[in-house]
Amino acid sequence: MFKKRNNIKEIEEGKYLEPKFDKNGLIPVVVSDFRNGDILMHGHMNSLALKKTIETKEAYYWSRSRKKIWHKGQISGFVQKVKEMKIDDDQDSVWISVDIGNGASCHVGYRSCFYRSIPLGKIKNTKKIKINFKEKKKVFNPSKVYKNQPNPTKL
Amino acid sequence: MFKKRNNIKEIEEGKYLEPKFDKNGLIPVVVSDFRNGDILMHGHMNSLALKKTIETKEAYYWSRSRKKIWHKGQISGFVQKVKEMKIDDDQDSVWISVDIGNGASCHVGYRSCFYRSIPLGKIKNTKKIKINFKEKKKVFNPSKVYKNQPNPTKL
Repeated sequence: MFKKRNNIKEIEEGKYLEPKFDKNGLIPVVVSDFRNGDILMHGHMNSLALKKTIETKEAYYWSRSRKKIWHKGQISGFVQKVKEMKIDDDQDSVWISVDIGNGASCHVGYRSCFYRSIPLGKIKNTKKIKINFKEKKKVFNPSKVYKNQPNPTKL
Repeated sequence: MFKKRNNIKEIEEGKYLEPKFDKNGLIPVVVSDFRNGDILMHGHMNSLALKKTIETKEAYYWSRSRKKIWHKGQISGFVQKVKEMKIDDDQDSVWISVDIGNGASCHVGYRSCFYRSIPLGKIKNTKKIKINFKEKKKVFNPSKVYKNQPNPTKL
C-alpha cells in the first residue's frame, strides 16, 4: 500500500513514508499524551490502520487478541485524537501524540497503560520483583464499560 | 528468568513483574527523554537485557540486526541512564525514561530517532506521502563515530 523500501539512505534521510511492517504485517506504535508527554500505551497497526489513522486523525490499531482492526474508543468512547505522528529512522515504528481529554487509554481503567513502575537497582530474586502502582485511581469502571467483552490480556 | 505468568488478574493488577516476551524472546521498549518527554527510540529487550537494565540503571537492548545484547552507547558514548522504568497493563511492553544529557539516541545522528513527522489528513497517493524533518541538525557525525560498523537499518 505504501512506497516500496529499496534504498537505506532514502529510508533514513529521504522524504517519503516507507513504513516497514513485520512478518505479521504490523508496525509498533508508541502513544503519548500530547498534554504532558506521558506514554499512554504501546500498540500495533497494520497498513490499513495506519492509513485510516492518517486520514481520520483518530487512532486505529490492529488488535492482536481480537485479530481485527480496532478503532480505539469505539466501545469505551475514549477516542484518541491524533495531534502529531512521527516515524523513526529506519521507519519500523511510529509515534503518535494524542488528545484523550480527561479519558483513559487502558482497558483496566487507568489513564495510561503504564501505571506501574519497576524499581531499579540490585535484584535479589528475579521471580519476586515487586512493581509499584503510580496511578491509584481508575478513570472508569471496566466491568461497566466493557460488560461482556473478552479481556484482551492474554497469558 | 522472571515470575511465571499464570493469572490475568495478577498480571494486570498484581504487584509482581511478570513480563511477556514474544516468540523471539523479546519485549518492546519505548524510550523517552526524562527532560521533556520526547520519544527518543523504540527498541527491544530480551530477558537478560531487561535484567541488566534494571540492575545497572543503564539501557541494554537486544539488537535484532546484530543479533546480540547491546549496551546502548558502547560505541558512540551516548549511554542512556535510566531514571524510571514502567511496565504496561498486560506486561508485554516496557517504558523507560532516560537521561542522555546533550547526546543522541539515533544512529543517523539526530537526538531522537523520531525526527520526521507524517502529515495528517486526506491522502492523495499512499505511495507518495511526504514526511517532514522536525530535527534538522545532527548531534554527531555517524560516519566518524561508527566508522566501519554496519548500518543497523535493513530494507
